[in-house]
Amino acid sequence: MKKINVGIIGLGTVGSGVVKTLRNLDYIEVVQIAVKSLNKKRNIENLDESLLTTDSFSVVNNPKVDIVVELIGGVNPAFELIKKAIENHKHIVTANKELLAKHGEELFKLAEKNNVVIMYEAAVGGGIPIIMPVKMALSANRIDKIAAILNGTTNYILTKMEQEGASYGDVLAEAQRLGYAETDPTGDVEGFDAAYKIATLATIAFKKRVNIKNIYREGITNISAKDMAYAKQLGYKIKLIALAKMKNNKADVRVHPMLVKTSHTLANINGVTNAVMLQGEPVGQIVLSGPGAGEFPTASSVVGDIIAISSELHKSEVMLPMMRCKHEQNAVPVEIKDTKNKYYILLNVSNEPGVIGIIGGVCGKHNINLASLLQKDSDEADDMSAEVVVITAKCLEADVQAAITELKLNNCIKEVKNLIRVME
Amino acid sequence: MKKINVGIIGLGTVGSGVVKTLRNLDYIEVVQIAVKSLNKKRNIENLDESLLTTDSFSVVNNPKVDIVVELIGGVNPAFELIKKAIENHKHIVTANKELLAKHGEELFKLAEKNNVVIMYEAAVGGGIPIIMPVKMALSANRIDKIAAILNGTTNYILTKMEQEGASYGDVLAEAQRLGYAETDPTGDVEGFDAAYKIATLATIAFKKRVNIKNIYREGITNISAKDMAYAKQLGYKIKLIALAKMKNNKADVRVHPMLVKTSHTLANINGVTNAVMLQGEPVGQIVLSGPGAGEFPTASSVVGDIIAISSELHKSEVMLPMMRCKHEQNAVPVEIKDTKNKYYILLNVSNEPGVIGIIGGVCGKHNINLASLLQKDSDEADDMSAEVVVITAKCLEADVQAAITELKLNNCIKEVKNLIRVME
Repeated sequence: MKKINVGIIGLGTVGSGVVKTLRNLDYIEVVQIAVKSLNKKRNIENLDESLLTTDSFSVVNNPKVDIVVELIGGVNPAFELIKKAIENHKHIVTANKELLAKHGEELFKLAEKNNVVIMYEAAVGGGIPIIMPVKMALSANRIDKIAAILNGTTNYILTKMEQEGASYGDVLAEAQRLGYAETDPTGDVEGFDAAYKIATLATIAFKKRVNIKNIYREGITNISAKDMAYAKQLGYKIKLIALAKMKNNKADVRVHPMLVKTSHTLANINGVTNAVMLQGEPVGQIVLSGPGAGEFPTASSVVGDIIAISSELHKSEVMLPMMRCKHEQNAVPVEIKDTKNKYYILLNVSNEPGVIGIIGGVCGKHNINLASLLQKDSDEADDMSAEVVVITAKCLEADVQAAITELKLNNCIKEVKNLIRVME
Repeated sequence: MKKINVGIIGLGTVGSGVVKTLRNLDYIEVVQIAVKSLNKKRNIENLDESLLTTDSFSVVNNPKVDIVVELIGGVNPAFELIKKAIENHKHIVTANKELLAKHGEELFKLAEKNNVVIMYEAAVGGGIPIIMPVKMALSANRIDKIAAILNGTTNYILTKMEQEGASYGDVLAEAQRLGYAETDPTGDVEGFDAAYKIATLATIAFKKRVNIKNIYREGITNISAKDMAYAKQLGYKIKLIALAKMKNNKADVRVHPMLVKTSHTLANINGVTNAVMLQGEPVGQIVLSGPGAGEFPTASSVVGDIIAISSELHKSEVMLPMMRCKHEQNAVPVEIKDTKNKYYILLNVSNEPGVIGIIGGVCGKHNINLASLLQKDSDEADDMSAEVVVITAKCLEADVQAAITELKLNNCIKEVKNLIRVME
């Protein structure tokens, strides 16, 4: 059997895992590796340093390379490198969710034109097999809903906050110390990472391109220990949920925190674990869960893609036809204001008669039915204020936003502390 | 695009779901369907009855048919039909776990010789994508452990017993009324169905053929409401677990009831849902769950396989190379007596001083450490007897069986009511 030659761009955590895992496969050879610095100490035994180069373009232009594995992340220079590699008729394996979300359309068209494939199992859900199952084993389905936990850092933070009653800031600091959160945590905690992933996953599930610009996004930075405690009292946990629904041919795709019933599968996904719940016809509901990141789980998916390409290389006219991404149509987006949800609203109010009536009145005026209401004296040693937690019935986001605006103008409402959507 | 012609053998529940699902795909056409009786009323709108035949062999010999879909189950006549179809160079899609477990080796060799594929996503876990993920997305892994709930009927019965405190017999009767259990439930309740499935799943996960004859099997017919109650009190649920472990190059594959900690993912798989927990290097732990049976979930997997074959048909020299099953090696089995487990033992004993000492003494003599012990007066209004529940530390099955034999001979031990293994 002719050896398959792989060129790797990026030798960080994932790259190291890939190099180590590929050593188990005698028919695949790593022939070149692009790195940032030649002098960095690597956690890889017996690494042949003659393979290393700081010139990434020499990998994509290397005539020996059959498959380019891009593991540097981000748009630049990954975008240019992958385009060049495709033009050089190399197959691509990447874990780059940001690049796929922002420039997937152009890349997949270019790949189609050059008769190569782009594989990206590791870009969504780390080690969880999700891209191949959606494109292959579940291909008979019309998938109409995805609800997923796709970011390990935020799930770790929320799990710790819930289990320890700790504040967001304290847990974030701990996560940064342990290496579960980056020094600049914005990409994770503001939901960008989850949004990139759900863009790609919804695109293949719905078979229509979901534009990252149409994904509503809210992070977890406003979730307080108080929200966690109230949620628990009401039978919920708070999770950062990536949601994608296809209804009446419109795609409602978003990332935001949600209250999830403690009995729900997603409420029991803890720490850095990821999970994807898919609903489709004819299959019904499927849940896939596992490690969402890390050296070895991610390497599992990257090397799985390399093996898939290798298995058909030089043997097939049209390689891995089911893995191709020809989404000619764009999904018609639903704006967040037009979505219907249940809501958790935490208010700080004047502790005086009639305030509950005012809240009820404002909600009623805006077509919002209340499902439950909880009043508690403020623990801030201020007997002039109280806290009110409202859970609404399903209602229109635009109505809720109008009600919130009106509540904020009322003298009895001191503060609208949080508004969190509730999973049905 | 040239139409792909499918011939279906069997138009029961799954067959009907497949016919309905295939209607969404304009490039796939059902050209012939073998049925038992032409006169049976079918739950399919506008079924073209001219496609029906009672001669199954006419389907496998039909020159128009590209893919034979076998959905009759059992060994005869499915075995002969599939062999003939393969010899006629037709690709096979089947949901027949019994046939694969008993004659997979011969069938896969014959398929290889005739350059066709046998696909069987529906044979394990119904609608859950598991065969393709193990063979493709997880192909970089050395999988060393599978723990799974693979039989919906028994999981439904155990869930009901646990939730309602009902007896096995009562719940079985209810399951039969609801159509969740067959009139002769042996195949499900004695663990045969789960054993067929784990044989196939372990074979592809370990990349060595696991012989069905080497799978230790125990069903759920001895599980009592009392066992359920004691398990609950100790923090466990009882599940029928299909287990496969590869250690020191030996395959320990078995199906039997187990006590599973209530916090364990598998303890929370209820009703007819199936779940597969896989552990491998480098991925770590993955859990896949979903509907394990039924018309539409099973059709999802069957049609997924048909689409996979169709996507490469006439385009590739070697079709779906990763889906082929070339397991030249047989797995070396581990005998149940040589396995190490934790055990739950329920004893009916004489209610007299010293009996706990006797139990402890016999266990100690056979190298069995006790992890916990619970004594309770018998509720049988007989103050001469008591019940003792023992949970052991991890110990050798042969030692436990020897201890049980010795306990049975002791006058103080009235009855060894049950012995159930405990998941670590």
